[in-house]
Amino acid sequence: MTGREKPVGIRLNERQLSDLELLRVGGYVPLDGFMTRSDYRSVVTEMHLASGKPWAMPITLAVDSELASAISEGDLVALLDGASGRTVGQLQIHEKFSYDKGHEARQVYRTTDHKHPGVAALYAQGDTLLGGPVTHEDPVALQDFTAFRRTPAELKGEFAQREWRTVVGFQTRNPVHRAHEYIQKAALEIVDGLLLHPLVGETKDDDVPADVRMRCYRVLLDNYFPRDRTMLAVLPAAMRYAGPREAIFHAQVRRNYGCTHFIVGRDHAGVGDYYGPYDAQHIFSEFDAGELGITPLFFEHAFWCNTCGGMATTKTCPHDASVRVFLSGTKVRELLRTNASLPAEFTRPEVACELMAAYQKS
Amino acid sequence: MTGREKPVGIRLNERQLSDLELLRVGGYVPLDGFMTRSDYRSVVTEMHLASGKPWAMPITLAVDSELASAISEGDLVALLDGASGRTVGQLQIHEKFSYDKGHEARQVYRTTDHKHPGVAALYAQGDTLLGGPVTHEDPVALQDFTAFRRTPAELKGEFAQREWRTVVGFQTRNPVHRAHEYIQKAALEIVDGLLLHPLVGETKDDDVPADVRMRCYRVLLDNYFPRDRTMLAVLPAAMRYAGPREAIFHAQVRRNYGCTHFIVGRDHAGVGDYYGPYDAQHIFSEFDAGELGITPLFFEHAFWCNTCGGMATTKTCPHDASVRVFLSGTKVRELLRTNASLPAEFTRPEVACELMAAYQKS
Repeated sequence: MTGREKPVGIRLNERQLSDLELLRVGGYVPLDGFMTRSDYRSVVTEMHLASGKPWAMPITLAVDSELASAISEGDLVALLDGASGRTVGQLQIHEKFSYDKGHEARQVYRTTDHKHPGVAALYAQGDTLLGGPVTHEDPVALQDFTAFRRTPAELKGEFAQREWRTVVGFQTRNPVHRAHEYIQKAALEIVDGLLLHPLVGETKDDDVPADVRMRCYRVLLDNYFPRDRTMLAVLPAAMRYAGPREAIFHAQVRRNYGCTHFIVGRDHAGVGDYYGPYDAQHIFSEFDAGELGITPLFFEHAFWCNTCGGMATTKTCPHDASVRVFLSGTKVRELLRTNASLPAEFTRPEVACELMAAYQKS
Repeated sequence: MTGREKPVGIRLNERQLSDLELLRVGGYVPLDGFMTRSDYRSVVTEMHLASGKPWAMPITLAVDSELASAISEGDLVALLDGASGRTVGQLQIHEKFSYDKGHEARQVYRTTDHKHPGVAALYAQGDTLLGGPVTHEDPVALQDFTAFRRTPAELKGEFAQREWRTVVGFQTRNPVHRAHEYIQKAALEIVDGLLLHPLVGETKDDDVPADVRMRCYRVLLDNYFPRDRTMLAVLPAAMRYAGPREAIFHAQVRRNYGCTHFIVGRDHAGVGDYYGPYDAQHIFSEFDAGELGITPLFFEHAFWCNTCGGMATTKTCPHDASVRVFLSGTKVRELLRTNASLPAEFTRPEVACELMAAYQKS
């Protein structure tokens, strides 16, 4: 990219840095930068880029009016790490445009409620979007979890080396309890390998912190999964909590990381009661077969059933709720706070131990 | 079919009656009769019909030399129930031809060992094959398990009524132990419905009789499967014990019955040590993607694992054999004979109870 660099720079927040990092590594293919007007509008309304390719989440760079007025279309602008001020990339400004936050909220989040964390972030951001291709320093952001960072190219290489022709990706921003393990293993039974791919970008304050989760994932994999069938790597994305739209987004990003299958469970990427429990599965039917380049695997609510004597879902267990062991997130946090043990039917003891240690410290 | 019917008739044995019944109901589409020379040779050597369509098992009508000499190409010959002498159909003789049993045995069964039950049946049958289209009475054979007989058209109708767009078929000639239940449920997690489709035609003498198995299937489904996700119907086919070839055959027949997916476990349709444990999975790679019209789902050896605290396979459990609960068929029969209980980790108590009752009676 050539062009005159303006002295002005854009300080990126954590979420924007995540997007730049994903653009850098190829996690957002076919995107090569922040969306211009036609892509943005088409994605918000149609879940497709202007080119017709599917894409469900706006990837935008919003700035406030003051900064916007100092930038013109055609400028080459530095992108700065908001915390350190370090230059992490450049944006070639192709377009500077206003947008309708209410419209985006309704279309993408299905609500304009400011209590929704994704909507709140949308309303809090600047009123002008800057669109155009980016270049980037390497690396973009602080590299935490370095041992588990893998670019799409690196992961694809490792899958090939392991001779995994089919790989199922599992997105999570939570500790992996037995319900998730069950779903992961049910999926693994029909593919060659499992990529446990936790999101470690920005999440809600009351989500379990990524470092605690990473310890949980490691003890779980070490004790309950065959090494030659599982990989753990981190996804440097921020959560949007956009439910159905984000399920499509998560699937396509995992396709870029080399997955052939993607698990979509109950209330994927949801928050509160904004989405029906299976809306994030139904939305896949709005795309043509093969269009997304990855096969979604849908799972219902999973639990331990005392009568089955094993894990199951509402699809495979005929027994009633009274014999099923399942705890809400609220109940889990309450047990952890009061130092009560989590039942082994719900959480592996090794994982419970890590969670309890983290809760006792905090 | 018109043409002069010869006074001579062909008495069909149990296996041949099964084939005629499957031709009648549409279980063998695209076949419309017993194979003529070009189809037979192409199937034996290439696993494809002369038309190029995939088909893995010869479907032939063998007669001895004496009967063969009384029949000419062009004849319309009655097909009789071998036991009752009742006319069950007619065969329009298009071709009368000799064949190489050793070649068929090597190609189809991968052995010429007479101890192999499929090979033994092949060597015991007549030296001349009669090929041509059939007509049939309705019904062909004695209708046992009438409550569970469903033609392909009937099953497809029921699947449609239940709005099952994807259905996984499970072939079995054995009682369903927890290992099979686990595989069935793992598959069911990713499709809409499960067809438990036991084969009730001729099997080896030491296989568990079909009536005992049917009682086992019913108590299992009644107690451990959701009714709205499972159907039980019988397949009136005979076992060939051809391992890999028969797995392809079983899959294609289930496609005809409306299944979209088909489970292929360890040593599918095998007997003794004639086939490698996963040969029946590997053979699917010899067909083009989509060619068979049904998606195979492959599963490894399944068992209860004490350390996992649940069912698993060698693909999803990292623990060693000492913590796994698995019994050989020989061990199961020994326990049943001595009236010892089967472990609940291996067989559901309701199923064990049916098996024990049958063994005590015999």
